[in-house]
Amino acid sequence: MPEHTAASRLRLSGLCFLLQILNVLLFAAFVRYSPESSRGPCPSQLNCSRRNPHSGFQRPRSQGGHIQVLLSFGLLVAFLSRYGSGSAATSILIMAFAIQWAVLIQGIFHFFLNGKIYVGAQSMVSADFCTAAVLLSAGAVLGRVNPVQLLLLALLEVTVCTLNEYILLSLMGVSDSGGSLTVHTFGAYFGLVVSRLLYQPHKDERKREEQQNTGQQRDVFAVVGTIFLWIFWPSFTSTTAVHDSAENWAVLNSCFSLVASTAATFILSPVLYEEGTPRMVQIQDATLAGMAVMGMAGEMLVTPFGALIAGLLVGLIPPLGFRFFTPVLQSRLKIQDTCGVHNIHGLPGILGALLGTLLTLLATADTYGDRLELVFPLVAQGSRSVTYQALLQLSALPLTLLLAALGGCITGCILKTKMLRGSPDAQSMDHTVFCEVAEEEPDPRASSKELGTSTLV
Amino acid sequence: MPEHTAASRLRLSGLCFLLQILNVLLFAAFVRYSPESSRGPCPSQLNCSRRNPHSGFQRPRSQGGHIQVLLSFGLLVAFLSRYGSGSAATSILIMAFAIQWAVLIQGIFHFFLNGKIYVGAQSMVSADFCTAAVLLSAGAVLGRVNPVQLLLLALLEVTVCTLNEYILLSLMGVSDSGGSLTVHTFGAYFGLVVSRLLYQPHKDERKREEQQNTGQQRDVFAVVGTIFLWIFWPSFTSTTAVHDSAENWAVLNSCFSLVASTAATFILSPVLYEEGTPRMVQIQDATLAGMAVMGMAGEMLVTPFGALIAGLLVGLIPPLGFRFFTPVLQSRLKIQDTCGVHNIHGLPGILGALLGTLLTLLATADTYGDRLELVFPLVAQGSRSVTYQALLQLSALPLTLLLAALGGCITGCILKTKMLRGSPDAQSMDHTVFCEVAEEEPDPRASSKELGTSTLV
Amino acid sequence: MPEHTAASRLRLSGLCFLLQILNVLLFAAFVRYSPESSRGPCPSQLNCSRRNPHSGFQRPRSQGGHIQVLLSFGLLVAFLSRYGSGSAATSILIMAFAIQWAVLIQGIFHFFLNGKIYVGAQSMVSADFCTAAVLLSAGAVLGRVNPVQLLLLALLEVTVCTLNEYILLSLMGVSDSGGSLTVHTFGAYFGLVVSRLLYQPHKDERKREEQQNTGQQRDVFAVVGTIFLWIFWPSFTSTTAVHDSAENWAVLNSCFSLVASTAATFILSPVLYEEGTPRMVQIQDATLAGMAVMGMAGEMLVTPFGALIAGLLVGLIPPLGFRFFTPVLQSRLKIQDTCGVHNIHGLPGILGALLGTLLTLLATADTYGDRLELVFPLVAQGSRSVTYQALLQLSALPLTLLLAALGGCITGCILKTKMLRGSPDAQSMDHTVFCEVAEEEPDPRASSKELGTSTLV
Repeated sequence: MPEHTAASRLRLSGLCFLLQILNVLLFAAFVRYSPESSRGPCPSQLNCSRRNPHSGFQRPRSQGGHIQVLLSFGLLVAFLSRYGSGSAATSILIMAFAIQWAVLIQGIFHFFLNGKIYVGAQSMVSADFCTAAVLLSAGAVLGRVNPVQLLLLALLEVTVCTLNEYILLSLMGVSDSGGSLTVHTFGAYFGLVVSRLLYQPHKDERKREEQQNTGQQRDVFAVVGTIFLWIFWPSFTSTTAVHDSAENWAVLNSCFSLVASTAATFILSPVLYEEGTPRMVQIQDATLAGMAVMGMAGEMLVTPFGALIAGLLVGLIPPLGFRFFTPVLQSRLKIQDTCGVHNIHGLPGILGALLGTLLTLLATADTYGDRLELVFPLVAQGSRSVTYQALLQLSALPLTLLLAALGGCITGCILKTKMLRGSPDAQSMDHTVFCEVAEEEPDPRASSKELGTSTLV
Repeated sequence: MPEHTAASRLRLSGLCFLLQILNVLLFAAFVRYSPESSRGPCPSQLNCSRRNPHSGFQRPRSQGGHIQVLLSFGLLVAFLSRYGSGSAATSILIMAFAIQWAVLIQGIFHFFLNGKIYVGAQSMVSADFCTAAVLLSAGAVLGRVNPVQLLLLALLEVTVCTLNEYILLSLMGVSDSGGSLTVHTFGAYFGLVVSRLLYQPHKDERKREEQQNTGQQRDVFAVVGTIFLWIFWPSFTSTTAVHDSAENWAVLNSCFSLVASTAATFILSPVLYEEGTPRMVQIQDATLAGMAVMGMAGEMLVTPFGALIAGLLVGLIPPLGFRFFTPVLQSRLKIQDTCGVHNIHGLPGILGALLGTLLTLLATADTYGDRLELVFPLVAQGSRSVTYQALLQLSALPLTLLLAALGGCITGCILKTKMLRGSPDAQSMDHTVFCEVAEEEPDPRASSKELGTSTLV
Repeated sequence: MPEHTAASRLRLSGLCFLLQILNVLLFAAFVRYSPESSRGPCPSQLNCSRRNPHSGFQRPRSQGGHIQVLLSFGLLVAFLSRYGSGSAATSILIMAFAIQWAVLIQGIFHFFLNGKIYVGAQSMVSADFCTAAVLLSAGAVLGRVNPVQLLLLALLEVTVCTLNEYILLSLMGVSDSGGSLTVHTFGAYFGLVVSRLLYQPHKDERKREEQQNTGQQRDVFAVVGTIFLWIFWPSFTSTTAVHDSAENWAVLNSCFSLVASTAATFILSPVLYEEGTPRMVQIQDATLAGMAVMGMAGEMLVTPFGALIAGLLVGLIPPLGFRFFTPVLQSRLKIQDTCGVHNIHGLPGILGALLGTLLTLLATADTYGDRLELVFPLVAQGSRSVTYQALLQLSALPLTLLLAALGGCITGCILKTKMLRGSPDAQSMDHTVFCEVAEEEPDPRASSKELGTSTLV
């Protein structure tokens, strides 16, 4: 049915065209470069200063221009090993749009003054965190949705994600510089709820097998992805952390956590699976989980062995999750999780938030020194007790889960309607993506051999 | 004819040996480390200070040691997806020599004092821009020349490119920090003219098919290349931009342009080709084009939506170009363009130069603030009017095209003579390169399947 | 014998578990974050200041958080092209443990105060240098040892390497910022001695062929690895070099050395082998050798042509070494060198140390200026003559070789015992690694074709 294919192709093209024109118009009407970045005088109403302790929006406290789109790309690289290069084009598409929308919508919440949004390097870093959450959610549904659906998902998720971030960081004053809650937990559960609503039993089995075969072959991508994450992620996490003094600790805690979670994979994997050494994708999962757990706690931990223990515990989650949780999710709860974001980002993110709450309770001026003012400005000023801060950190977790579930529900329902409306196009388009992947399969023998071990992932 | 092969092998080896010995001798005679980098007193005659507004050589205003050879490698990575890893060795060869020559020749123009060339990190960044232009030109002729010819091309192009750069930046005071003219436009048209002079009708068809088959397979390289470019290129462009304040804008403008050009590919590609989503090479082309257009205008644009519009327009060029221009170039003008540099660098570079001219006309002290002195020092001092500056920016375009055409003509004629002299060797050597590529072809079935879609690129 | 495999799997898992628990306990008991990184007052007994000229431990004079695990990963990437992605998991395992042990053991030597080890970003950089040496040694024995043996090797080598480093840098005051001796020479000869003791004649031939076939196929890894090294290594070498002024020279010297060693490969390779252009692995070898030679001399060279000559000479070593030394090593001395670390790191490291000695002799206050105090603090203070410093630099070489040989002997004997004890498990495990590699072999025809050229590497 070539006319269907043509229609679906043009539908995506047209949607992109409309959205991009809309973006240009909105940018032309509202977005200007921040006076801060031209070193002009900063209007007193606009929150230019990063040292303003009353500003709850603590995220972009420092930035390096060269790592702006890094976080998103880290995730993109991470998914390649699970899903093949066929998903790369679609991921880049939703990233290109999600960044623009995030700049617009986050600008309305954080950088709005006199009817204009003033953007700077800070906006890019914030937009990038939001885009990372979108990519995470996409990882849960990849392969069962068409690009048009993914675009709508990105549009809706950016909005809800920014709302969640605004409530947590600005209104409640929660400290979550690395995004354990706002990125990892939110993105994972948003995606899982959407995945639940898009559940299609018969279509699933065949697809999953194909995806896994491809995944096995992608050791090359997993190697590149793991190396990429080891090198860049610790510094990225610290980009948004408190300046100078605390930055070092966030980087070091991330490194120790990552090292320990890798070791945990080597401990658990031979017990669970019949292989001597873990596969590279498993090591990559451990790397991602080790980072997710340090998102909130990274700048709060004051001893290296804390990071080692946290990393060791969180490194056990992905192997156990893929072995025991994912089948249960799929058979009982009818939630398909293409890239396993629940094991890699969801649970580690929750663990990171709980760890952050615990560490907040233990925070004292003695152990933190000057850093207390940077990590918990309101506590340092005495306008808030440590217990109250810890309570807020804790209550941010159910709030994030609630917003993710609500947003996922609405998005899933909308995508379902759209999908029904455009069902045949959607399938043929979906198939195109798979064909591209399948073409690169060099040898049917190899894939059948790998099927035997496909229970692994 | 093994004796021919042996002769050609030894000819390349001998040429490399002679050139490298010559380089060592020239470096020993003339090149010293700049006193600036040893923090000694700067001789007043030597232009050590970067803040000297009378110095027209504005390029290396800031530098990060870790991104010195980055631009060249960005291009190298970009070409891998079109031409396969067989071209990587040759590209690295010409890069290794082009960097040395560029340090020497640029040193004579810019860092010469008392019979010595004083090099520093600035020289490396400048040399790297020049090397990028050489790699661009090589991209137009790759696969139809042997390594000896490529070495001579690099030798000649570095000279002409430095001359062009000297006239534009130092004599005319044109602002082109990201190299829209000096790198992208110059490199592309130099390569195209050389390609025209080396035209061989019968040899061409077969080669082009092989190259395309290989290109199709290289989705992995395209994925890695695109990610590499997204992460590093914005910061590279800004390396040479004005310090502090304007740097942010150059990075942000590049990001916005890149995002919009990616969106443009998703808009246009489904209309032109019968595929739902663009291939990764097309997205990579859009990334490169989005960067080329921001080379000159990056530090001049004062509103984000300008970057979005420029990116959107320039993102339409590569798909349209590959569809309509490249066949015309090949059949009518007999110009073969192996990696499509005309669509990816040539036209976007020209568009960038025109955009830069327009923005220069609009530059006022009100909108630029302190940045005016950094972007247009002569205008800020009042020694030059905005209209005159814009006229110079505009006249730099035909000048660059003229020098590129002249240099390309001379180079092409010399390469032709050489090739005639060493024709059989050249072909067998050429073939070696292809064999290396062909060996990696895993499955003849796959390649024949891909032939069916080879009209795409 | 599946029960054997299960036992060996669980043995590795159990060993990892024990070691990781031990690490957590030791970290909990001894390791704290350095007060320097929390900007608190520095205890006078603790060597916080990097400007203290009496401190012999000159290494972590500056650091960038984002390149902490970079050196190790550079090596990891470099080995992938020789040995395939099957070795990546094992390499990451030993890296994860080596980093933790290095932090502990180096902490005892350098950062110990009042019963606590105070770690900071400096510790991570130091630990990373040590891990690089471990990875180098692993490169010599990879494919003939099981993961358990590699873990023990890492444990022992970290200890000896730290001892060697302590003697050279702290006690003798040798300047070796880039690790020509402490990393490259030590790691290579430690690995070679271990390899000699683990020699198994009959097992060897078959394995070596397999490994080489795989290596040929890994051109993709070699391309990625080479690009990675070109981009990041110069800045990594300079991370530990003297601040500000000298840093530039270390980066520039590394770049020039690298360019010349690449050219040397293009000169020598066509003479030695029957190919027009060198393979990517050879270019990667040249890159690594060009870096190894600049480890000590990088911050001492005051003229660019010195770096060109050193690079040119050292670039000749790997092709000559693989052609003439490696077969002799294997047949006469019964030393198998899986990744050729003797040619790529051992000999270039020695050459670098000799060059460093020569340059130390030539160092005068005139040529060095302010840098003398930074490169040779004791000489600048007048408490040591240049000749004495040169003598120490020279005597560091035999000392390093002696310690590497001694440490390698002990380690090899222990590994041999262990291996005898666990021989059948070891072999089956070893085989698993190879299977993983062999699975990805797409076409038997291609591999047999490549066998014909397997004399190349």
